[in-house]
Amino acid sequence: MDTAEIPKSRKGSLTRSAILEEAVQLASVHGLEGLSIGQLAEATGLSKAGLFAHFGSKEGLQLATVEAAGALFVAAVIDPVKHLPKGLPRLRGLLESWLAYGPSRTFRGGCFFAAASTEFDGRPGPVRDRVREAMKQWSGLLKHAVREAVAEGHLRDEADPSLLAFEFLALAMGANNAYQLHDDPRAFDLARRAFAARLDALVTP
Amino acid sequence: MDTAEIPKSRKGSLTRSAILEEAVQLASVHGLEGLSIGQLAEATGLSKAGLFAHFGSKEGLQLATVEAAGALFVAAVIDPVKHLPKGLPRLRGLLESWLAYGPSRTFRGGCFFAAASTEFDGRPGPVRDRVREAMKQWSGLLKHAVREAVAEGHLRDEADPSLLAFEFLALAMGANNAYQLHDDPRAFDLARRAFAARLDALVTP
Repeated sequence: MDTAEIPKSRKGSLTRSAILEEAVQLASVHGLEGLSIGQLAEATGLSKAGLFAHFGSKEGLQLATVEAAGALFVAAVIDPVKHLPKGLPRLRGLLESWLAYGPSRTFRGGCFFAAASTEFDGRPGPVRDRVREAMKQWSGLLKHAVREAVAEGHLRDEADPSLLAFEFLALAMGANNAYQLHDDPRAFDLARRAFAARLDALVTP
Repeated sequence: MDTAEIPKSRKGSLTRSAILEEAVQLASVHGLEGLSIGQLAEATGLSKAGLFAHFGSKEGLQLATVEAAGALFVAAVIDPVKHLPKGLPRLRGLLESWLAYGPSRTFRGGCFFAAASTEFDGRPGPVRDRVREAMKQWSGLLKHAVREAVAEGHLRDEADPSLLAFEFLALAMGANNAYQLHDDPRAFDLARRAFAARLDALVTP
């Protein structure tokens, strides 16, 4: 939601989800640690006191922001391919939807989770725990999709869900990083080729 | 260098490289943007004014820190395998040396470059340019090693240096991230298996 479109008189009643959407976008650019209540107040036109009342503390805001980013990720990447037949079609659908969301700028500053998981990896605490939980859920979903593809007879038994989920995650984060750092949209094509090569080598005859 | 071992009277004369080594370690934990002159002053026992005189500005300190981290990386990863025969032995040596340095805690908070390249990917400026340059140099070295392995007849002609360098970089950063985020040392073994699978599929008969 663009706050410029909100009449001044309504700014005080911006919904929690609209505030958090702005927080996610700011954090995708400046980092979750770089997200300040003051900056968010400026971006939303709300008072600092009002935002403190909403979130209690910077950590409260960070935790709510991770939650909101998770919902955005599910809506952008997972929901659109839920209808695909389980097994290889859904697995390929998930991977393609995931790569497509990188350049779609769902997150203004690149993937929120790629940034947050690197930013917080060395800082123990509730925020790190929540980011870690979100990454585990996604990795778990990828492993599940691989197991289903094996169960459906689409991939050979030797397809290792843990190894493949690790590789997929690394390659997608690598593509996001190369795209962000080098402005090179071909990074997603490299990841696409790498995904395809891994799966093609495991497809049943 | 542990500043606790430096007699108080000598602290004022800490060398530039010892100061920067501490800066690299702090940045590996708190992020390059989280690195402050004040924090560095505390960690080294030097005055803020003295550090400003050394580096001119926060950006000057950040740039010098990227440079110092690069030197640490070269000493830890590249130098130890320079003597290996060129081609596949040197390529495998580079990859193994790179994976070994993750859990070696060369950087206290995990790989400095994995963190800095994500932290700065959305923030244009001289620091981002310098991080980008360092990542390009390393990626260029990996591509060169792949090309040499093809030229020596160790890898098949279809080995694509750009795709392989992208995959290696993504997998190593993914392992670093998983190790940092989930405290899971098996992440490096997953990357090791993925490296081996990619290379084994391309080795000449």
